[in-house]
Order: sequence, then structure tokens, then C-alpha cells
Amino acid sequence: MFTAGFSELGSEQGRQLERQIATAARQKGIRLIGPNCMGLYYPKTRLTFGIDFPKESGSVGYIAQSGGNSIYGIREAATRGLYFSKVISYGNACDLNESDFLEYLAQDPETKIIAAYIEGIKDGQRFLKVLRQATRAKPVIIFKGGTTEIGLKTAASHTSAIAGSDRIWHSLLHQLGAIQVHSIEEIVDVALLFIYMSPPHGKNIALLGTGGGASVQAADACSNAGLAVPTLPAEIRQRLKDILGLEAGNIFINPLDLFSRNKQGVIEQAIKVIANYDQIDLLLMHIQLGISAMHEQNIEAFAAYTEAIINLAKQINKRTAVVLSSLASVESKQIASEWQSRLYKAGFPVYPSVHSAANAISKFIQYHHRQ
Amino acid sequence: MFTAGFSELGSEQGRQLERQIATAARQKGIRLIGPNCMGLYYPKTRLTFGIDFPKESGSVGYIAQSGGNSIYGIREAATRGLYFSKVISYGNACDLNESDFLEYLAQDPETKIIAAYIEGIKDGQRFLKVLRQATRAKPVIIFKGGTTEIGLKTAASHTSAIAGSDRIWHSLLHQLGAIQVHSIEEIVDVALLFIYMSPPHGKNIALLGTGGGASVQAADACSNAGLAVPTLPAEIRQRLKDILGLEAGNIFINPLDLFSRNKQGVIEQAIKVIANYDQIDLLLMHIQLGISAMHEQNIEAFAAYTEAIINLAKQINKRTAVVLSSLASVESKQIASEWQSRLYKAGFPVYPSVHSAANAISKFIQYHHRQ
Repeated sequence: MFTAGFSELGSEQGRQLERQIATAARQKGIRLIGPNCMGLYYPKTRLTFGIDFPKESGSVGYIAQSGGNSIYGIREAATRGLYFSKVISYGNACDLNESDFLEYLAQDPETKIIAAYIEGIKDGQRFLKVLRQATRAKPVIIFKGGTTEIGLKTAASHTSAIAGSDRIWHSLLHQLGAIQVHSIEEIVDVALLFIYMSPPHGKNIALLGTGGGASVQAADACSNAGLAVPTLPAEIRQRLKDILGLEAGNIFINPLDLFSRNKQGVIEQAIKVIANYDQIDLLLMHIQLGISAMHEQNIEAFAAYTEAIINLAKQINKRTAVVLSSLASVESKQIASEWQSRLYKAGFPVYPSVHSAANAISKFIQYHHRQ
Repeated sequence: MFTAGFSELGSEQGRQLERQIATAARQKGIRLIGPNCMGLYYPKTRLTFGIDFPKESGSVGYIAQSGGNSIYGIREAATRGLYFSKVISYGNACDLNESDFLEYLAQDPETKIIAAYIEGIKDGQRFLKVLRQATRAKPVIIFKGGTTEIGLKTAASHTSAIAGSDRIWHSLLHQLGAIQVHSIEEIVDVALLFIYMSPPHGKNIALLGTGGGASVQAADACSNAGLAVPTLPAEIRQRLKDILGLEAGNIFINPLDLFSRNKQGVIEQAIKVIANYDQIDLLLMHIQLGISAMHEQNIEAFAAYTEAIINLAKQINKRTAVVLSSLASVESKQIASEWQSRLYKAGFPVYPSVHSAANAISKFIQYHHRQ
């Protein structure tokens, strides 16, 4: 039921109309999704509520209580190489609710990962039971909207949801083994890893990037996210210096600053040395597009990093994520977008900042550690 | 001294060379910036280290220990309507250091706001004294890089900085009245308010946006940032309903969900009602580009919001910030970028997310509250 104007109005008339619809449907054995929702997107069967939604099927099953967040999530995910088995926008949930959809996705063979934007729950006891079953079956990523007093009030006005406090939700999701996130973008950040990366053995990460300040910030971001950035041993550092040349201004300790090393072959060699070092569990390649002017020569130089990463995709046996941080300028976004789509097609999860990558990787590792 | 290869190498030879340069310069009465830096950008005199840097002068004086962060900051700021009086990239600071630059900018009549990216300080006592003087003279925004153990180690390798722990820096900056931020983007977020907004009297914010889920998230983000989102009184809500029509799915309590109200005149009337309500100190207009497909009709409809805001710029007497959140897609960024530049030219600070806007506004209010 796409139509709105029911319990979310906050009026007795609205609530009564919604009850009447639910009762009438139940009497005739008809199940309802909605009202006040966008309905179903099932790319395999070409069922959609957005004419521009991807036709590709993926393995993420996504339920969203907000129509806007279902649409935004589908479009945002598509720009980053993440596709869906089924998306359910369910609004006021007068009949079928979040527990029914979770139960369904938990046993759906087309769904490997479950993601949810939820404003409120209809039946707490049942939700707990169903969520426990779902997290045992597959990863469940949950973004709870309406976690502040005024957010709750807004949620009530939006989908008539009765929602619990942030503290309760946080403990609950943690206990039941779900992964809590705080934005639609973060749903995509975390889900990408389940698609594009196998579980790492540990949390030792090597940072290879462009720029000294960027390297300092990358180290801070990874440490703050709970990842370890171990200093490379002298032997490895020497091999890197032999390959890269001891040039002024560069950093070798891990982070490794590859700025001004624009030869693809040299970059590949350096990556290989670190990828083959067994004390490192993951590589994070971060490319900052804004620090060179976007004229042809510089773009070519920066492209060497992307080419090196793509070229090594099948040669190196190390979990790798890529960060493409670009300026707010359209030119910079354009280039980032082209490289991003080449990178995810080569099998890499791509992030807009080290902060978002480190946060997602940390949650991914914690999830597997608890399993 | 643009050239690098000195103390940041971590070798005795590097340190010695740097000392020799500093001594030689001092003996001849020459002051040095650097080495391992980009130098000076002073748009008024056309002195620059980036051929694409804006020729416009602004009132932000920015010092950055990292060359990359000075460049990135200048370019990022330009896309958002923020310009500089002077930018100083100072690297290893073998002679002139952060305290000298702070002292200079504090008394520079062309500089109204000071921003700094600092990895380490050379003389703690002097820095404290100078920073205290600077914060008494004008707002000082500081991004401290290298606040984790590995970040510190990287900073030492980058600019040979000896840096303190995050906790020490946090207390110190707070006590001395500086505004602490955690990224280059956040420097721009906060500085924009000092340029484009006069200090609000209180922290009551009204949220006008497009989308129910987006409204719930906006309410959560503002509450979490310490802003108040007061429910509008029945009388105001009734006036809004009279203007907008009681349509299904819309939210009127504050947040106000203007989704599907695409007539510019109607939007302007609604904004005016809230702007004239004296219990609201600030307006936040948030437009989510991703929830309608980017075909012509929808773009026109969404453009009505931008037009309404721009048209009201001189008519309403209320501090207003605008959020343009766009998808990662290039098309969406392109439109956001055009609207953004029209909005900042009309005098509005523009943000990429409600989260970044709420955070900056909260710091802006706290700053004025303490003054």
C-alpha cells in the first residue's frame, strides 16, 4: 500500500482507517505491506519502484521503514558496486512488519547479508527471537533511526513508530550479534566488506597512501577505530627503500607515503613487498585526489596507483580496501567515480575516506571475531 | 624552503643539515619557512604555490604543517565559498614556527579567523602564551594531527614533530578558547559560519527538509550535537498546515517535512512562518538530492527549494544554514555543486550532511557562549 494518510497523521481517524484496512485484509486472507511505503524492489523479476534502479541482482536483502531511505540506499549502493536481492520499503507496518521481513530474509537463499533501517518495532518479544535467528543465519546490519527524544517524536510522526532509547538498542543489537550502524552510507560501507572481502585473520593493517598529512590522519583514523598499524621491520623497510629510493619527505614506517612515486611498476613492487609480509592482515590503499591539481599530467600520475592496484588484484593474496578521497569539486568527483567503478569491478571495496573504511573494517573484524 | 630531506628523515645527517641551514640563516639575519613545506599563498599579491588556487582573497588565515593539507584545504574551501587572507605551509619549522605564525595572524588586519593544521609544537610555553593571545583577538580553529601513538610516530617521520597526546591537546585547546576540529573538512565547516552567520542568541533550531527518514535522521543528528529542536506550538503548526495543506506522510512538528511541496511560493511562505517565530534561533534547510530520480521534472521540483531559500535571503531575519546531501553519483554531485555555489553567493553556509552542519553550528554556538 503505497498510499499514506493513516496512523502517521497522529489523528484518531488515521489510526481507525489503518485498523479497518488491516482487518479487512486479514478477513480475506490478504497480506499487506504498508501503508505509507514504497513497496518492493526485486531486480531479478524486474519489480521496482524506481525506473532508474539497477537491473543487476546482488546478495543484500534490505528492509527500510522509510521510503526515502530505501530509495537513497539503493542509489547510493549502486554507485559503489553494491546490489540487492530484495528491498522492502514497509512504512507503517499495519500487517506485515519488520519481524516478518527479517524472518523471510534469514531463510531466503538469494540473500546473503541483511540490512535494515528501522524506526520502531511492533512486537518486541517476537523481534528479539527473529533477530537472534537471523544473526545466526547471516550478517545483519541495522541502522536504528529515532534514537533521541526528538528523533523518536519525529519517527512517531513519520511511520507511527514506538521506538526505544539508543542505549537499549545498542545493548540489544550487540547482544544479539547484529552490527549497528548510524547512516545509510555506513550500511553500504559495512555490507561492501561482506561482498568484497574474506574475513581477515587479525587486525594488523598496512597503510599505503599519497601524502604526509594524509598518512598521519590515516594512522590516527585506523588507531581510533581499534585497528593496529604495526611498524614494518627494518628488513622490509630496507627493501621498500631499495625499490622506491630514499626520497625526501617520504614515510616508510607504515604508513607508507608513496607520494610522487608515480611509476606503476614501482608502486606494484612496493605493494607486493608489503602484501607478502605475513604479519600484515590487510592493506588499505588511500589516494587523495585533492593534493595535486587536476591537470592531465597529475591525473595520469595518480591513475598509476589505481592501475597498480587493479593489476595486482589477482596476484596478491591479501585483503585490500581502497580509499578514494576527492575534493567537493565536480571534476574531482568525476575522476573518483570512474576509478571507483573500475576498482569495484576488479573486486575491491572502495571508500570515500580512511575514517569510513577503518570504521567498517573494524566492525567487520569484530563481527567475525564474535562468530 | 620548499626542499625536503632534512630532520624528517630521522637520520643524524638530516638533523645536522637542518641545524646548519637554520644557523647560517640566523647569522645573516634571514628568516626561514620550512624546510619540507610549500611556502606561502597570499592571493592579494598573487603569491601562490598552486596555479589553480583562487585569486579571491578572504578573511581566513590558515597555517598548515603539512603541504598536502594546505593544498587540500585551499581547494576544498574554494568549492564551498571560503577564501583565505594568507596560507602558510611550514613543514619542519626549523626557524619560524607555529607560534610565530599564530602571533602574526592574531594581529594581521586582513585575517579575521585563524585556522591551523598542526602536527607538533616547537616551544610549548611560548605556544600556550601566543595561542591565548590569539584566541582573545579572533576565533582560532585547530586540527591536531598525530593524536594516537602511531599517528605521532607518523608525524615524527613526516615533519619531525614531537607531539602530545590527544587528551592533553583536547584540554589545552578547550582551556585556551580554541575550537578543536578533526579534519580539514571540519575546518571549513566551522570557518564558514564565522564568515556567513552572525552569532545566534540560543540553540533552538528548526529543521526544514525533504523526506521523512531524512527528517528523523536530522532530528537525531541535531540532538546528538547538543542543539535543541523544539516542537512548534499548535498555532504555528496550524498556519503551516493552512499553507502546505494537510497531506499524507508529511511531518509538521519540527522537523518539518516539505517533501512533494514543490511550488516555490508555498515553500517560501512556510519558511517565512517559521523564520518569524521568535522561539527559533536558527533554520536548517536540508535537501536530499538522492530520493528523487535525477530527471528533469524532479530536478526542477527540487530546485524550487533552492530558489525559495535564495529568494528569501534578504527578506528573512534568521540565521540559516543549508544542507545539500547528494548521492555518490557524478550527476547528483554536479547538481549539488551548482546549487551550492548559488547558495553561498547568496550568503548561506552550505554543508554536505546534517551531521556536519549540526556539529559545526554546535561548536560555533559554544564558542560565542564562552566569549
